[in-house]
Amino acid sequence: MSQSRRSFASDNVAPAAPEVMAALARVNQGTVHSYGDDPETRRLTGLAQRTFEAELAIYPVATGTAANALALAVLAPPYGGIYCDAVAHVNTDECGAPEFYAGGAKLLPLTTADGRLRASQLAAPIAHAREMGVHHVAPAALSLSQATEWGTVYGLQQLRELTAAAHAHGLSVHMDGARFANAVAHLGCTPAEASWRSGVDVLSFGATKNGALAAEAVIFFRADMARDFELRRKRAGQLWSKLRYMSAQLTALLEDGLWLRHGRHANALAARLAQGLQVRGIGLVQPVEANEVFAVLPAQRIAALRAAGFEFYEWPAARPDRQPVVRLVTAYDMVAADVDALLAALDA
Amino acid sequence: MSQSRRSFASDNVAPAAPEVMAALARVNQGTVHSYGDDPETRRLTGLAQRTFEAELAIYPVATGTAANALALAVLAPPYGGIYCDAVAHVNTDECGAPEFYAGGAKLLPLTTADGRLRASQLAAPIAHAREMGVHHVAPAALSLSQATEWGTVYGLQQLRELTAAAHAHGLSVHMDGARFANAVAHLGCTPAEASWRSGVDVLSFGATKNGALAAEAVIFFRADMARDFELRRKRAGQLWSKLRYMSAQLTALLEDGLWLRHGRHANALAARLAQGLQVRGIGLVQPVEANEVFAVLPAQRIAALRAAGFEFYEWPAARPDRQPVVRLVTAYDMVAADVDALLAALDA
Amino acid sequence: MSQSRRSFASDNVAPAAPEVMAALARVNQGTVHSYGDDPETRRLTGLAQRTFEAELAIYPVATGTAANALALAVLAPPYGGIYCDAVAHVNTDECGAPEFYAGGAKLLPLTTADGRLRASQLAAPIAHAREMGVHHVAPAALSLSQATEWGTVYGLQQLRELTAAAHAHGLSVHMDGARFANAVAHLGCTPAEASWRSGVDVLSFGATKNGALAAEAVIFFRADMARDFELRRKRAGQLWSKLRYMSAQLTALLEDGLWLRHGRHANALAARLAQGLQVRGIGLVQPVEANEVFAVLPAQRIAALRAAGFEFYEWPAARPDRQPVVRLVTAYDMVAADVDALLAALDA
Amino acid sequence: MSQSRRSFASDNVAPAAPEVMAALARVNQGTVHSYGDDPETRRLTGLAQRTFEAELAIYPVATGTAANALALAVLAPPYGGIYCDAVAHVNTDECGAPEFYAGGAKLLPLTTADGRLRASQLAAPIAHAREMGVHHVAPAALSLSQATEWGTVYGLQQLRELTAAAHAHGLSVHMDGARFANAVAHLGCTPAEASWRSGVDVLSFGATKNGALAAEAVIFFRADMARDFELRRKRAGQLWSKLRYMSAQLTALLEDGLWLRHGRHANALAARLAQGLQVRGIGLVQPVEANEVFAVLPAQRIAALRAAGFEFYEWPAARPDRQPVVRLVTAYDMVAADVDALLAALDA
Repeated sequence: MSQSRRSFASDNVAPAAPEVMAALARVNQGTVHSYGDDPETRRLTGLAQRTFEAELAIYPVATGTAANALALAVLAPPYGGIYCDAVAHVNTDECGAPEFYAGGAKLLPLTTADGRLRASQLAAPIAHAREMGVHHVAPAALSLSQATEWGTVYGLQQLRELTAAAHAHGLSVHMDGARFANAVAHLGCTPAEASWRSGVDVLSFGATKNGALAAEAVIFFRADMARDFELRRKRAGQLWSKLRYMSAQLTALLEDGLWLRHGRHANALAARLAQGLQVRGIGLVQPVEANEVFAVLPAQRIAALRAAGFEFYEWPAARPDRQPVVRLVTAYDMVAADVDALLAALDA
Repeated sequence: MSQSRRSFASDNVAPAAPEVMAALARVNQGTVHSYGDDPETRRLTGLAQRTFEAELAIYPVATGTAANALALAVLAPPYGGIYCDAVAHVNTDECGAPEFYAGGAKLLPLTTADGRLRASQLAAPIAHAREMGVHHVAPAALSLSQATEWGTVYGLQQLRELTAAAHAHGLSVHMDGARFANAVAHLGCTPAEASWRSGVDVLSFGATKNGALAAEAVIFFRADMARDFELRRKRAGQLWSKLRYMSAQLTALLEDGLWLRHGRHANALAARLAQGLQVRGIGLVQPVEANEVFAVLPAQRIAALRAAGFEFYEWPAARPDRQPVVRLVTAYDMVAADVDALLAALDA
Repeated sequence: MSQSRRSFASDNVAPAAPEVMAALARVNQGTVHSYGDDPETRRLTGLAQRTFEAELAIYPVATGTAANALALAVLAPPYGGIYCDAVAHVNTDECGAPEFYAGGAKLLPLTTADGRLRASQLAAPIAHAREMGVHHVAPAALSLSQATEWGTVYGLQQLRELTAAAHAHGLSVHMDGARFANAVAHLGCTPAEASWRSGVDVLSFGATKNGALAAEAVIFFRADMARDFELRRKRAGQLWSKLRYMSAQLTALLEDGLWLRHGRHANALAARLAQGLQVRGIGLVQPVEANEVFAVLPAQRIAALRAAGFEFYEWPAARPDRQPVVRLVTAYDMVAADVDALLAALDA
Repeated sequence: MSQSRRSFASDNVAPAAPEVMAALARVNQGTVHSYGDDPETRRLTGLAQRTFEAELAIYPVATGTAANALALAVLAPPYGGIYCDAVAHVNTDECGAPEFYAGGAKLLPLTTADGRLRASQLAAPIAHAREMGVHHVAPAALSLSQATEWGTVYGLQQLRELTAAAHAHGLSVHMDGARFANAVAHLGCTPAEASWRSGVDVLSFGATKNGALAAEAVIFFRADMARDFELRRKRAGQLWSKLRYMSAQLTALLEDGLWLRHGRHANALAARLAQGLQVRGIGLVQPVEANEVFAVLPAQRIAALRAAGFEFYEWPAARPDRQPVVRLVTAYDMVAADVDALLAALDA
């Protein structure tokens, strides 16, 4: 009997989906023009435009860090300020990539309880910034994560209020959608509703965590930003000569909605896991709305799970009552038995 | 009968080698730790160390532009100067990527006839820079291309004189080895001799043009530079969570010397092409030592080749006697019949 | 009868001291070598070395923002993190200058009640940063303000514990001494004790607020950093050809301890003001240890003072019990009557 | 008898003009608002607008390097290309300041014989850049020096053709006017004709070499660029709190056309010097149209002049027939006797 999949460390420990591998093989035929002037890249644009019902521009990049940082560099001048959650990936996990790409722009962290910024949080800091004039970085953009770093998901109404407030203050809106598929799966809305119809100007569309081999995409819903991006992409070393292989990973996911099925699947497993934990009296730190479960787990149980071969991270940021919090992440390639094996190990 | 391969535009229009595709499939099993803490990435380091007979550090990156720019950012401070050939890819084709990655460092172009810098070219500009003190960017690095942009190859003696002069002036040495395989194939020496034993501190090791799907590598022969690079790589968005897929492309090429066989094969086809052109009275602009042929071709013959479906670039930089120069590039995936088809089209 | 000086808005609204103006006139004779190779600049170095009892390097720059940002650029790599108070001038008032000069380095704000960082605040965030590896900016420097943004002053013991902790964690230490004179005046120690003997590696030595016309200085107590600084200074456009005029402003202040007398004078006036306010039942937000007084003032009294021609800022950051807080700043050029006039206006 | 002024090294070795010193004393009265909200700075804007007959914005900065680099940062995006003469100060003498300020933008040097770019030089490199697309930096700006680095001056017709060509290609136009006064004096036209009426968008208006103590100015003739500049100026540490002292230096020069009288005076002395040299059979490398004389001087005569206490630079860039070339610079504070003393020393 094959061993269950025991890493709940991240959705990025998973392999690539068979459909993605098949797409790579499919495009690995003959010569094509380089740097994106190839049929598969054109196909990607078409697929993305149909998926999002918009005249968008889509660009494959190497990583989520690149997607976020390149997108923000288009939205913010070097002396610009970018509002985000204090725990946002762009602020805590990217080694200063947004600051680098945007030539020294400054992230302006706001505090939330659940990863979701509120529309009302913008007025005061922006009023202060305007009052300070040239002494303060110029408010330029809002970056929000959907799903959030806490595995929660902005409701559409909440999202629209936030982006409307941002636009009213003259900010452009970036969505870090490393787990966009999980968010859309939770919301049960269209990709368009989850993005540009709710005020998102630029989307980092996550694929690596959702079945790709190594590809993310930046999607611009505003055509006026595309040329600037294209030049920044090139000088960032993020424009492949053999772009067909990046594009193929994304077409494989977009085709027939595979990306969304993956998202739903991972969400369902997270829900199963959350329920199993609660049944066992284990507290959750946040509502489980995507594919991440943050649970309060005594040190002894952590040790027991690790001894049984399970992998996951303790989460440093929040330890209420000094109890350790662990993050458990499900992914498209897991099955219910994997979740059940972890729950069983807790019972042992 | 299948159509011959008719694009001589670049070696980057080729598909990936079957061995590379097989390696991707091979590593596409189960979960592994992310960000390079995986067996395939460790295997890559071992293979590279054996290939180069050195305690090196090797890092996969997305593109040659990224490899060059990230490497140079380690070698040069933001106020540093980087000497290179005026026609070097870093100076002409990367949309300012080195300047971006190195925080504004300045490329200082020197002129050559054949893409090969001479050791004697360094003394005067560096003496001038020293005399100018803080008003001049601080001489920091030398970047040379091997094979060169003109399809020529530095001889080992010439290379050693150049790197020795650079080191004597306090410069670090970067080699843009987008076509390193072709250069080593031409030299018939070991990879060690072609790199660190001849004074190269950092090598951009090309793979995309040599059979990879989308991977290049930066190789540091000096351990003291590695940590700096690792942080720069992350903030550049060039550190993949699923690094195994980048590493696998490189291991596939390094294993059993596939990379070098590819280089030899492409070189042999270029030699065949060069000979065929000369037999037909067509002049070559440079000696053909790697996989690029620069030929003087009348406009009429250019039109005829294009009409027959052949693709290639006219080369803007050098048009002696107003005659057009074209660049014809061979690659690992071509066969002799492809070359012969082009020659036959010239006869038609 | 001449009007009293009614601006308590900032110490930078003051004119230049007569000694500074005299020094400008003194050096305005004949030709001298440019870019710092002049007698007055050499004199400045000598004076500073005697004042600080150290083999330091001192560099005039245009503004405090330039001093801080250039200094931090030497201490932190582009992927570095700089710990500071959340309300530090470098974090809130310089339009991202440190991020710009340091090529995207990131300020990592810590929260304090009184502007004074505690040694114990460093361990947790640095441990977290180390654990995060390349995903977190690399802890590189500590920037502290002395006197602080709240008009408080680090005691020598407190300062030494903080800098020792920083050094133990591998951080370099920068002191923003825009009001260094006021701090030394308060401490009653030597400049050496207030700086390098207490672990400061680089000092932004404020002069503009203390009687200069337009000059600040960066002082390096570590010689290994000086060359890097000199090149950064030039490319920042902060190296004057006629450097003698910058140097003369600083020599005028250093000579005979004028800078320190100015600091003592302003401090004494602030103490007089604080006492007068407290006598009138007006609460102070912070202990008054330098030349800034933060007072809780009802809106009606604010209006009354403004009507009487007094100028000052409401302070946005801290309004306990919703009461407005105002900042009142004294300066070297004020006299007791100016303070008394404000107090009298409160009584009216 | 007082010694003659013997340094012909640069116009920046001169002291400040008495009018400038008087202006400093004049504004050194009482408190004024900081950061440019003061009467003298408003007066500067008015004076500059009258001088240039335009609704311009003028900003004092510390140095010519700062003026040029900050101006170019407004004109060129980080991935932009800036065409200039290969010997332009921005390209050779500013330690990479333009690259730093413009976030990595690239200077694209063109070669001239006399420091004056020709309109016809732009078409070919820009056509090449457009053809290269994202692989080439995006042509963004033209920077020209007036007077040039060779002491020559663009005629108005030549200037207009050049700027018209630049604009036609979509470039903005920057003029490095470190010696703008000398150029206008030579042309005998109005400042407006020498700048915006001839297609200049932004002017670095030199003052330091023309009698200021330490001030230059950036003048924007296009209002849409001003806000961007103001934020960049602040984060560059080039916005003084006591801005009145910078403004006063510039008002002193603008008032009653002092700046232009200074330019005429220095030019006349250079003409006297040039004539004296030619009479003595000493060859000039360039026509003398401003305040710089480039003369071919045998090593023996160089030594003799140095022995007599004269100072000047040998000029590295151009040594026809291996003969040393020296640069002799006159300035506003020299008198005819100073020039005659040098000529007499040649006769000795």
